[in-house]
Amino acid sequence: MNERLAALRGLLDTRGLDAIALSRSANKRYFSGFRLSDSEGPTSGWSGTLLVTRDATMILADSRYTEQAQAEAPDWELIPTAGRMDEELPPLLRRRRVEALGLEALVVSHADWAALAQVAPGVELHAMDEELMRLRIVKAASEVDAIGRACALTDACFAHLMDFVKPGMTERAVAWELESYFRANGAEGLAFDAIVLAGPRAAMPHGRPSDAVVERGNVLLLDFGCAVDGYRSDMTRTVFVGDVPDQIRRSHVAVREAQAAVIDALAVGVNGQELDAIARRRIEAEGVEPYGHGLGHGIGLETHEPPRLRAAEACTLEAGMVFSVEPGIYLPGVTGIRIEDIVALESSGPRLLTTSPREALVIG
Amino acid sequence: MNERLAALRGLLDTRGLDAIALSRSANKRYFSGFRLSDSEGPTSGWSGTLLVTRDATMILADSRYTEQAQAEAPDWELIPTAGRMDEELPPLLRRRRVEALGLEALVVSHADWAALAQVAPGVELHAMDEELMRLRIVKAASEVDAIGRACALTDACFAHLMDFVKPGMTERAVAWELESYFRANGAEGLAFDAIVLAGPRAAMPHGRPSDAVVERGNVLLLDFGCAVDGYRSDMTRTVFVGDVPDQIRRSHVAVREAQAAVIDALAVGVNGQELDAIARRRIEAEGVEPYGHGLGHGIGLETHEPPRLRAAEACTLEAGMVFSVEPGIYLPGVTGIRIEDIVALESSGPRLLTTSPREALVIG
Repeated sequence: MNERLAALRGLLDTRGLDAIALSRSANKRYFSGFRLSDSEGPTSGWSGTLLVTRDATMILADSRYTEQAQAEAPDWELIPTAGRMDEELPPLLRRRRVEALGLEALVVSHADWAALAQVAPGVELHAMDEELMRLRIVKAASEVDAIGRACALTDACFAHLMDFVKPGMTERAVAWELESYFRANGAEGLAFDAIVLAGPRAAMPHGRPSDAVVERGNVLLLDFGCAVDGYRSDMTRTVFVGDVPDQIRRSHVAVREAQAAVIDALAVGVNGQELDAIARRRIEAEGVEPYGHGLGHGIGLETHEPPRLRAAEACTLEAGMVFSVEPGIYLPGVTGIRIEDIVALESSGPRLLTTSPREALVIG
Repeated sequence: MNERLAALRGLLDTRGLDAIALSRSANKRYFSGFRLSDSEGPTSGWSGTLLVTRDATMILADSRYTEQAQAEAPDWELIPTAGRMDEELPPLLRRRRVEALGLEALVVSHADWAALAQVAPGVELHAMDEELMRLRIVKAASEVDAIGRACALTDACFAHLMDFVKPGMTERAVAWELESYFRANGAEGLAFDAIVLAGPRAAMPHGRPSDAVVERGNVLLLDFGCAVDGYRSDMTRTVFVGDVPDQIRRSHVAVREAQAAVIDALAVGVNGQELDAIARRRIEAEGVEPYGHGLGHGIGLETHEPPRLRAAEACTLEAGMVFSVEPGIYLPGVTGIRIEDIVALESSGPRLLTTSPREALVIG
């Protein structure tokens, strides 16, 4: 935590700020240990906001969260709050002589920002989301370990599902089994709402499990992950329920080869755009549209975080980055195929943290 | 839905706007049917944003959500998006000749708002959170029915837990049983992360279930709810595990009587501040501090929504409002006691939607 704080305070100097207020749940946890679940986010308001100056570290919490803040962030000075951000923060800023404050503009609502700007006209407000994100982009060994534990549990869950799933089950029943498995086996929760889609419904890159039944001749697409000690996993497998048409088999091979070509090309210094192009070329060679989403995303305390591997954005890979590689083919009305794994990039090359079989398994 | 849209368009006139963009998940669902779960919120970005003008209703969705948007909001014109809000919205606003746009400043990030203001300088941006919230504050009969179904399932879950919980179980095990019960019995999910706290831990108004064990002589505080067809429930019961000290029994009676006094006083036209004062007076008569949180909150598509019943804010109750009544006593280091029910206010008076026993049950 001391190294993390030192890096954070480095931003005070590079940006010429007197203080930084952290509002993003993942940053609250990363710097102080204070934990909020994804579903708590909206109701927790600004509880757990961290205020860091050159010589103080403070955690602000209303009465619902003061005991938790003291227990989880014992080294931080607890500032109990009762009102809104624009009521509580200005006196604290005056007392600490803060004239330039860094804030997370991607997380702070416009209402909070505008109210603060109005009641504290002597304080410059600076957006600093990108710099803060970058502090978490290269993972420490302990963080890679935690992501690895989440990935190992995800592999175990997939193996369990391959035994469990039978034709005739609903997508929803499979999703619930998956969530139950994670919770019974030590996960804090899901990394995101699991995607479980059968047959033509798999053409939705982000569909929600429904009462649709898994039938013979379908593919079953499973995109799921869990959180262990705050760190996330994310894996997609597309399996066949009995025999599937040749077009689907060919597409599965193309996606698998596209992913393998990317993983082969992974190395420190490579640009994410080149990797995306490699995957797209292999898929376009089949005469079908490649995926409309990105090739991959960083993962850590958030399921989606930098780096982004996609056509629209340059990103140079560094040792210590951990990210997904997830090409896909979507055939509207027919089906969708996606294969996704989590990779930790080391100076010697990529290490796969998810290790479930990538070839098309056949169930039922 | 047509009535809802008419009320929404009424705001175009009263506020002198050409269009309203809706970003809050509950509003996306209320006006269009488009559904996002609480945990999807952060990753969905601005997908499902609704844009309403005098003569058009549009739903904006990126490729992850286009199929879902078409299925769930079939009457809305689908506008596929690929980029950020400040890239996609301005051309649409120009085409529709929008010069004054209403936005939800409590939900839109400052980054999105500021970027939009910069790239579309000819468009005035107006915050209109309060007016939009008010459109959902009085519930239609079908909405009260849905909240009632969620409350009935919560009562059934509580009855199940009273059989299930035994001394020696962890808070976490109880929380998981509760969640499993909801999911197995038709809920969409939890209304919020369940609060299950034993003994002194119940002094945290908002604590998280831990590996702490439920022991004889403890209280067990259960604050939980589910979502049915999008509508939420929220109920708290504090039960005794075997014999508990007299101080705790007396506090439980005081909280119950405080809640009963509030419910007796509920009527159309009453002010929430008066109700809060009624509860506090009864608790202060015991010589203990009353709760530091509000007395109650509205509930519907969100677990916490207007009206707020609390000392700091005037609110006049109307027929059709549905809200919680939840006084409590917190004795730091000793325990906490809270009793919470959901009430639908009708012109003839209050109707309790949660009906589990309010007296102190003894388990174990």
